[in-house]
Parts: sequence; C-alpha cells; structure tokens
Amino acid sequence: MILRIPAGSVLCLAALSASAFCAMVGRSSSAQNSPAPLPIMPLPASVTPADGEFLIDGNFNVAFEGFTEARLERARLRFLGKLSKETGIPFSVEVPAGKALLQIQTAGPSAAIQQLGEDESYRLQIAPGGVTLSAANPLGVMHGLQTFLQLVRITPRGFTVPTLTIEDKPRFPWRGLMIDVSRHFIPLPAIERNLDAMEAVKLNVFHWHLSDNQGFRVESKVFPLLQQRGSDGLYYTQDQVRHVIEYARDRGIRVIPEFDMPAHTTAWFVGYPQIASGKGPYEIERHWGIFDPAMDPTRESTYQFLNLLIGEMTALFPDLYFHIGGDECNGKEWDGNPRIQEFMRAHQIKDNAALQALFTGRVQKLVAARHKVMEGWDEVLQPDTPKDVVIQSWRGRESLLDAAKRGYRGLLSTGYYIDLNYSAEQHYLVDPLEGIADKLTPEQTASILGGEATMWSEFVTGETVDTRIWPRTAAIAERLWSPQQVRDVNSMYARMTIVEDRLRDFGIENKATREQMLERMSGDVNPEALRVLASVVEPPKEYERGQLRDYTSQTPLNRLVDAVSPESETAREFREISKRIVAGSATPEDWQQAHDWLVLWRDNDRRLQPTLAKSELTAELAPVSKSLQQVAEIGLQALDSLKQGKTISADAQKQNLAVLTAAEKPQAVLLLMVAPPVEMLVKSIQVR
Amino acid sequence: MILRIPAGSVLCLAALSASAFCAMVGRSSSAQNSPAPLPIMPLPASVTPADGEFLIDGNFNVAFEGFTEARLERARLRFLGKLSKETGIPFSVEVPAGKALLQIQTAGPSAAIQQLGEDESYRLQIAPGGVTLSAANPLGVMHGLQTFLQLVRITPRGFTVPTLTIEDKPRFPWRGLMIDVSRHFIPLPAIERNLDAMEAVKLNVFHWHLSDNQGFRVESKVFPLLQQRGSDGLYYTQDQVRHVIEYARDRGIRVIPEFDMPAHTTAWFVGYPQIASGKGPYEIERHWGIFDPAMDPTRESTYQFLNLLIGEMTALFPDLYFHIGGDECNGKEWDGNPRIQEFMRAHQIKDNAALQALFTGRVQKLVAARHKVMEGWDEVLQPDTPKDVVIQSWRGRESLLDAAKRGYRGLLSTGYYIDLNYSAEQHYLVDPLEGIADKLTPEQTASILGGEATMWSEFVTGETVDTRIWPRTAAIAERLWSPQQVRDVNSMYARMTIVEDRLRDFGIENKATREQMLERMSGDVNPEALRVLASVVEPPKEYERGQLRDYTSQTPLNRLVDAVSPESETAREFREISKRIVAGSATPEDWQQAHDWLVLWRDNDRRLQPTLAKSELTAELAPVSKSLQQVAEIGLQALDSLKQGKTISADAQKQNLAVLTAAEKPQAVLLLMVAPPVEMLVKSIQVR
Repeated sequence: MILRIPAGSVLCLAALSASAFCAMVGRSSSAQNSPAPLPIMPLPASVTPADGEFLIDGNFNVAFEGFTEARLERARLRFLGKLSKETGIPFSVEVPAGKALLQIQTAGPSAAIQQLGEDESYRLQIAPGGVTLSAANPLGVMHGLQTFLQLVRITPRGFTVPTLTIEDKPRFPWRGLMIDVSRHFIPLPAIERNLDAMEAVKLNVFHWHLSDNQGFRVESKVFPLLQQRGSDGLYYTQDQVRHVIEYARDRGIRVIPEFDMPAHTTAWFVGYPQIASGKGPYEIERHWGIFDPAMDPTRESTYQFLNLLIGEMTALFPDLYFHIGGDECNGKEWDGNPRIQEFMRAHQIKDNAALQALFTGRVQKLVAARHKVMEGWDEVLQPDTPKDVVIQSWRGRESLLDAAKRGYRGLLSTGYYIDLNYSAEQHYLVDPLEGIADKLTPEQTASILGGEATMWSEFVTGETVDTRIWPRTAAIAERLWSPQQVRDVNSMYARMTIVEDRLRDFGIENKATREQMLERMSGDVNPEALRVLASVVEPPKEYERGQLRDYTSQTPLNRLVDAVSPESETAREFREISKRIVAGSATPEDWQQAHDWLVLWRDNDRRLQPTLAKSELTAELAPVSKSLQQVAEIGLQALDSLKQGKTISADAQKQNLAVLTAAEKPQAVLLLMVAPPVEMLVKSIQVR
Repeated sequence: MILRIPAGSVLCLAALSASAFCAMVGRSSSAQNSPAPLPIMPLPASVTPADGEFLIDGNFNVAFEGFTEARLERARLRFLGKLSKETGIPFSVEVPAGKALLQIQTAGPSAAIQQLGEDESYRLQIAPGGVTLSAANPLGVMHGLQTFLQLVRITPRGFTVPTLTIEDKPRFPWRGLMIDVSRHFIPLPAIERNLDAMEAVKLNVFHWHLSDNQGFRVESKVFPLLQQRGSDGLYYTQDQVRHVIEYARDRGIRVIPEFDMPAHTTAWFVGYPQIASGKGPYEIERHWGIFDPAMDPTRESTYQFLNLLIGEMTALFPDLYFHIGGDECNGKEWDGNPRIQEFMRAHQIKDNAALQALFTGRVQKLVAARHKVMEGWDEVLQPDTPKDVVIQSWRGRESLLDAAKRGYRGLLSTGYYIDLNYSAEQHYLVDPLEGIADKLTPEQTASILGGEATMWSEFVTGETVDTRIWPRTAAIAERLWSPQQVRDVNSMYARMTIVEDRLRDFGIENKATREQMLERMSGDVNPEALRVLASVVEPPKEYERGQLRDYTSQTPLNRLVDAVSPESETAREFREISKRIVAGSATPEDWQQAHDWLVLWRDNDRRLQPTLAKSELTAELAPVSKSLQQVAEIGLQALDSLKQGKTISADAQKQNLAVLTAAEKPQAVLLLMVAPPVEMLVKSIQVR
C-alpha cells in the first residue's frame, strides 16, 4: 500500500485500484502487488477515482470562464504546446466557440505581485465527456494544468486521462529551489528550463543566489564594477532579470534574489575594495571553501553603498522578500583590521557575532526602508532581529524550532542540499515539522513556511545542473506539497522515474546530457561498456569530492563523476534485491536479475579496459572498472553460496571483505555503489 | 583507399596515414584497412599532413589580426562556446594581449549583403605550438573555424587537433538547403538549429519556402489577411524574419525567400480571393498534392497586388535573389474561368504554358523593378525570359543543361529531395555536372551554380524535421563543396556518422528525438524491443507514403515511421555484410555479426509482440515485428546453408522467397530493410 489511510476515505489519494494505473508505474522492476498510485508528483491532497477515461485526440481544446488575463492565455498556449509534445498530436490553438473539452473556471485574479500564502488550490474533474478545472485564481489553474499533463498516458484507445476528481492544495506555502549562479554561472536557458520543471512539480519560489566570492552575477547600473570586474563577463543584464521574473510569474513562481553579505563577497571587492575589511587588492575567488573577505561593518560608507545597491535591487526584484545571506562569516578580516578592532572596543562589541548582528541590523533597516522583508540564513537571527524577518535554516530543524519559538517564520533547507549527492529517499523523508511540531503552538507551527532545495554550484555547470537538480527535487517538491502522511518510498521512486521522463518535455534532458558526456569522454570508442560502469557508480557524498582533488572554478567538469547520476537507479535496485535475498524474501526473478547483473559487471572490464587509455578523460577509470569486476566475481560466488546453502571459510570471507572494503573507497572520484550490497550478501553467508 | 589521387600530390586530401586518424572513424563496424580520411565533412580541397598535434586545454584562446568587425567577434564567442561543448573545458572569452594560440588573419570585409560567388576560401595551419587561420574575408574565417571544430578529438593526452595545413575553397558558389515551412510550420528555434548545422557543413544558402497551398508563413503589413487568414496563426513576424536573416548572415548564409506563384497559392486566397482565378471562397488546404487554385494572370489588379507585396518582401529580404516558385500550375482554374479563356483568345495566347509565361514575365519585371534578380523552378524558363534569371531544377540535369546552353544560370535540386527518404549514398553520388559538363563550354559550365537540398514538409514537423534533414544533407554539402573526385561512399558514411554526433553540439538532437518518440509510443513499456525493430525499418521512398494512407496536415506524425531514420544504419551494414558473404569475401567477424543480428531479430518478436497492443500507436506494428522474425529465421537458415555449403530444395527456396517478397511490401507504412539482403543470401544458396 502506498498510503496508510482508512479505506473509503475521501482523502483516498493514491489508492486507485484500477489496474490501468498499475501499468503506469510498471517500469520499475521492483515487484509491487498493491494498487499503484497515480504516476504523478506531487501527489494531490485528495483523489476520488471513477470508472472510465477521457480521450485526447485532435479535437481537444481549452477555454476559460470567469476571470481571464493575458497570463492565463499564455498558460493555455503553453499547456497545449506541452500536450502536443507529450502526444505528438497537433492541437488547434483557437478558442472554441461553445463549451471546451477542457473548461477552466477562474474565480478571480491573483495578486499583481505573487504573495506568500496566496490560495493555490484547484479542483480537477475529469469525466469521459469533458474536463473541468476550477480554481480561485490563476495560480491554482496553473497547478491543475500541470496535474492534467502528468495524467496523460497512451492506451490501446489512444492518449487518455483517467476519470477522477482531484481536490488539491499545498501543505506548505513556501516551496523553493535555490540555484547558486555564482560559483559557476548558469546561463539563462538553463534557468528557464528549471523554472519550467519547477512549475511541473508545483514549486513556487525560485531563490536566486546571485552573488558570492566567485562571482557577482547581476548587472548593477549604480555600481557597474560589480559585474564588470566581478563576473568574468558572465552575468545577467537587468533586462534578462526582468525576463526571468516575468517568466517565473507566468508559472506561478516567485523570484527571491540573494545578495550574500557581509562575507561571501570577494567578487564585490574586485571592483569596490573600499567596502571590504581587508587591504586588498581583491581578485575573483577561483577556489571553493570559506574565505576571509567580509564587508567593513564599521564604516558609514559601507551602508551608503548598500543603501544604494539595495535600492536598485529591490526595485528590480518585485517580490516582498529580499535575501541578504549572512552565512559563514569567519571574521578573520575583522580580526586583522586594527581600525575595526578599535571600533569594537569603543562600542563595546564583545565578539564578531555581535559585530555581524550590528551589521545585519543596519542592513535590515535598509531593506525595510524599501518596504521589503529581509530573509537570511540562520546567522541573521539575533536577539533584537525584527519579528518579520524570515530565517532560512541550513543548520537544521533545531535552529528552525528555536526561531519558531521566538516568533520568527522560517523555512528548512537542511536535508534538502541536493548538491551533496544524497539519495532521493534521504531528501524525501526529511519533513520540516518532524520532531518539532509537538513542541510548538499551532501559530508557531504555521510559522514554519516550508523549505527549499539548494543547488550550490561548486560542481555543476550550465551543462550538468539539470542532471543534479532533477529528478530528486521532485521528491522534495512532493514533501512540501503533499499531505504529511504521503511518504511511501517505493511509490515515490516508481513515480519519480516517470516524472523524470516527463520532465524531458520541459527541456530537462538528463539522459541525453549524460549520453553526450559519455560519448565525449569516449571519443570514437563506442561508449557501451562505459555506460555499464556509469550505471553503478555515484559521485562522492557531502563534501568529500573537494577533499579528494584540488578543484577550482576553472577545472573542466567533464569526467565520469560529472556524467553519472547522483543516485544510481541500478545500484538502488540491486541493493533492494540483495536485501530481499538476505531476508529470504527474494523471488526467482530477483535471483535471476542479481545473477544477470553480476555477470554483466564481471565481464564488462574485459570490454572496457582496453579502451580506457585512449582518452585522457577515461584513463583514470581503469582501477574502477577492475574493482567492478572483482566485486562482481565475489558477488557471484556469494549468490551461489547462498542459493546452494554453502558455507565459506573464515579466511576466504576475510579476503573477500578486504577486497570489498577497498572497492568501497572512492576511486577516480567515484563510489562503486554495488560494493556495499555485495558486502551484505557476503556477510550473510554462513562461515564454517 | 578513400581517394584515388596520385600519392604525394599536394591535393592529398584525406590520405593521412597517421594511425590516429584510423581510430577516428573506427566506430563503423565495416573493416577498413586503408588509411582513413580526416573525420570531417565536407572534405577540404587540400590537406597537407604533418607529424604531431596541437593540444587544447584551458589556456586555449583566439584573437584577430587585420580586418575585424562585430560579426567576427560574435563568431569567436560562438566558436569558443561550441569548443566548450565539445570538450567540457571552460575557456576564457577574453582576448589575449599577445599572440593567441589560434590567431586569425582576415584580409578585409565581405560584402555588406552577402553575394553569390564571394571568396569563401581559407587557409588553416595547425602546428604543435599554435594555429593560424587566414582568409580573404569573414566568410572564409567562419568556414575555417568550423573545420577546426570538426578536427578536435580526445586522445590520451587530452583534446587535440592534428598538425596539418588545409587550403580550402568551395567547388560551387551556391550550396543550399530549402525548408518548406508551409505544409507544416517549422518554428523559429528549429530554423535556427538548422542554420547552425548548415554553417557546420559550409552550406551558404537558406532557401525559405514561405508560402504554399497549406500556409502563408510570413507577416505582411501591406496585406495582413495573408497571414491572418492563411496561416492558422503560425507565421513569422517581420522582426523574426529580420532576426533569421541576421542569424544566417552571422553564419555566412544567404537567405532567399520563395513566394510560390501563380499556383501553390490557396492560402493567399483565403484572405484575398480577388487575386484568384476561381470563384472561391477558399480555405487553407489541409491535404497534400497538386491543387487547382492559381492567381488570375489576366487582371491588372493581380499585378498591382503583387507589386506591393513584392515591394514589401524585397525590402524585408536583402538578398539579391528573389524566388517566385512557378512550379506545378495545372491550369484548371484558368480552364474553368470564361473571362480568362476570353482573354487568352483575345490576346492569342495559345495555351496555359503561354499564359503562365505571360504571368512570369510580368512578375519578373516587378522583381527587377526592385533591383532584384528573379529565381524560379524550371517552369519559369520561357523563350523570352531575361538572361539573369536563375533556374532551380526539380526536373533534372537535362533541364539544367538546356538552361545552361541557352545562357541561363541554374542550380540542381533533382536528386537532392531529402524528403523522399533516399539513402545518403544516392544523394551523394548525384553530381550537378555529371554527364553534362562535356556538352558545355567553360562559361556555360560555370553557369551551373551548385545545388540545393529540398526539405518538403508534408511529413515533418518542428519535432522531426532535423532528423530528416541531417545527417544526409551533410553528404550533399560535401558534394557541393569538395572536389568532384571526392566520392568514396564508404568514407562518406564513416565520416557522416561522426559528423552526425558533432551536429548534436549544434542542437540537432536526432538520437534523443527518436528515443523520445519511441518512449512516447511505448508509454510505460520499456522501449528496448521497439528500438530493435526501429533499427531495421525505414519510411517508404518517394511519394509512396501518401499513397498508403490518407494524410492531412492535421494527422499526428507520432508513429514509428516518423521516429525512424530515413536510412537504417544497421540495415545498410547488414546489406554490406550480406554482399560480402555472397561474394565470398566475408570475414569471420562478418559471419558472426550477421548471425548475432539475425538471432536478435528472430528473438525480438517474442519480447515485443505482447507489448504492442498496449498502445494505439504501436498496435499496428504487430505484423511488422512478426515479419522481422520470419525474415530472420530464413536468414539464419540461409547463413547456415552458405556456411556449410548445403543446398536447398526448389520448393523450400520458393517458399522462403514468397515470405521475403511479402515482407518487402510496406506494412504499417514501413519498409523492412533487412528483407532484401536476406533475399540476396537465399538466392545465393545452391538449389538442388
């Protein structure tokens, strides 16, 4: 079962028993006997199924009743375009004279500037004869259209959607994706693609991390040296920013800019060293890590500069919220500046945290003077921080709990750091309210606004960023939209695979990107054997990659670690099978699949090894390929022993485990993800 | 050997013996013992190889000497962007202070409006220490940069280009691609992608077939009902047209608009029936074929209309040449209009051809009055046609020969109709001068300007058009650029495969598009077995598809016939192997490959058949899949007989041939391309 909800409940969610839906998630090889949920993400708050289906053919059309606006008409055209992409059917874009097959009823407008907490609900009623989508405002309409697009499937009758009624609304009002465009610049088309994908999974906040030590990425007309000297020429013009904001608004997405300060600001100081605390001169930072440069919080001229810049940027970005970062100021430039030390003594500022609090307080007033609400990372929360400030937590739920108790609104990013290459499951099971809801009043609970996935960009470029954001961010989107009890991991994986395929219609070309990178690495060698290796490795987790090699912003990200998925689907399935084998619950198909894979992996090195040295980019993979062969050989022996009930000598087991332990260490900045399941198999053999 | 040119000749072309180059075309499975050519298309006029290579790393940079302009700077940035895509290496876009690693010397400007016959030559000298590209003007520079991009390859040392000197220039000055955007509208991004790909293979004329019975696709401000009533809302604004012209100019490509008249004009008449010869009212044509509607050549008001429209469009399109179509006027509306008949009698116009000649003569004067040169299909050539008119031949080389003898300039499109799904080989071997050069004086020969590939769009959409144009058009581009004696088909195929991969960097995503279509058709069924079937079928040739089913412009093009390549690479290789088996020259690898394929095909039906009925789009493939199984079974028997030297009974052979003959007939609008080679094998078995 996907959801543990009383049978017959209106909140039936995914408990559709029609066998058609089972087929829809049938791509996953893991056995599922329960009725499958609708193959959509995020799952709606309520689904009431009915018998039958609605057929989509060349006559399909869409029209509006009630409130209309240009944005809705654009949404209609975009919807028809996506539906054409999904089906290959050309639809007329003309609005039908009478009732449309998809009739949209919009009660009224949404706010001119999208607000936190606006009504995003919608009702989608699909009958064999026609479809009705109704919503309070265009935000709900756009969400409902995305749900419809995900429901479309090919059947023996053609493309159809199932008849049902969906009543849907989000659990949290703030569902975001942060993209760091400073450490690596992310070109405009990639931003657009990701906004499209965000719309598809009903995320509603694009948090644009625009400045950091490695680049200031937005045009300032007031202080043009910010981008002229701080970006290597890679920045967004103000026209492009306005375009992105419009593009996002068209998709029900708010855009919140972040100008991280007082630290993370090296790139600012290349053009404007006078606002820094150190002597300078400064250069754009090319390395990754935490760096010393920080603004000088003791000079009035710093605030005069920030006042003008905040004035310019709050005018450019219409959202009510304005993110000033505030994280990871190590204070070393302050320690090393006698004038700043003198200022602290004179004003009885006891430490650097207090000095930063003073800075943050001043900046908050500058932001408030522009009629905006400040947002910042945990560090901005200080004893006298105004109560409207929003805290984004990278430190964890405890920090969020603390903020809520003190009356602040907050959102969670801990656990949603998608740059760290965790599994979708790990992100999916992080709930903003888990373990803290019972410690808060209902008002305090409501002050937990939601969360944001964060894509820090040390190890992504415009080429690879999509493959790291998606599809895992769809799991986070479901966590933030769907009811709390929606948390069946198998269901999530089955649906995420389908949603990933659908995201391709939005330009998120993960498979094609990976294939192209493998072919680039292989040159004129057929990449078939490399694909096999690629399917079972993952990038290192957390911050280990940067510890294994010396990377700078100029290091090409064109090796296998950049081409592979953060989460190997094959390795995950092999792990699940291995668990069932060890638990004694494996099916004959499980045994066969494990055997087939292990044979494939064992024999792959023979095909791959001779080709690796032909390319500088693959030469380093020789030991990884060899490890896969050794692991697979041990795995095959283990499988045989387990099947036959054989025992193993203590020595042999020790030797095998030593090989596996070595294979589990990163090689060529890659983790061989099938080694731990094989270790699990080996350890379950009886030692004689 | 690729080229049969005396060894040691400066015009050594592809005769590089360095073994590195052999590896570069190593993806083809066909055995090649001779030195392979550079893996580029079109092959340059002259290549002088040297020992060594030039390494491309993060320090690579580009700078100009001599003439510069904004277009060259844009070409530089575009070049660096493509090189980054090829290598995954981020390059600095800053111009180096001193000598660059790629130093470009441009002698002077090219014409403000690109002219027919401008100097397009370049010299590319690659040494281990640096690269020099020199050209008379920016056109040559752009060609040289594309050659460089194609030379890049991954090696154990990293990305390199071989040291060599290329002296290159085109054989023909007019090397075009026509895209019909009327029968199916082709959206702007697809036009841009194809201009990028044209630049990559040095085509220099984009012939834009803008109007036809099924749509008038460009905004007219003078006669707005043309697009308002004649395009279903699918047309290019004048701003978009200007953008395309600028985009093309940036890539060394001229843009020639075609407004086909007096027939092929139904879409015009929806808004302006007064210029038609029939009674009307008219509707946009939804079917394919030749239709009756034609302009009324007997009224002055028709020419007044055309004068204004030609005035508007010649101002919009800066190229000196203006294409007025002129093909396939069946004259039926003229026959049926008493007033026109009366006019013909009164003016002693003996037939419809003469009436069209009168029309064409009037239109030519309107075009000439705007200081433009008229171009048209064969039909526009009449006894008193002015000598500067350019004839585009769809009727064949005889027609071209005739025109040249009479002093007209012409270009060939017969043989380059890429919509007819011929093989690349068939197009490649069509030479504009073959069989006619010896019948002409040198001046007359020079009047054969080149040729154009024509992509008529009955059966393509914006989604699929790239997959039909490329890579075969690269073979035509080579025919029109490279020396006449470059015509080794094996070399062409080996290089075309590589060039197709490279075109992906220009957005021509053939593999990804096909895969996406297969997945769409399959729904949630893994398309693996469908891929096997897809790899051995082709669309029907010539105009057979339209005879097999009733298609309109609203028929979805989302079936297997739309997803497969016009030319199956697998079938071609299997055919080549079969030829060698029959000829007794097959290698053991050939026998093994044929056997492996036949086993794969025989066993595929068992996997594919149960899934086909699940989707309306695949249900029709059941008999095709079954045929493949039967053909493969017969093929395996034949292989065995040939290997063992067994004989076959006359009856058995007859039965087998009957099955094969049936399998060679179109099924589900598809040709099973491995049936003929199996027939070849069967026929070579000795009958007892």
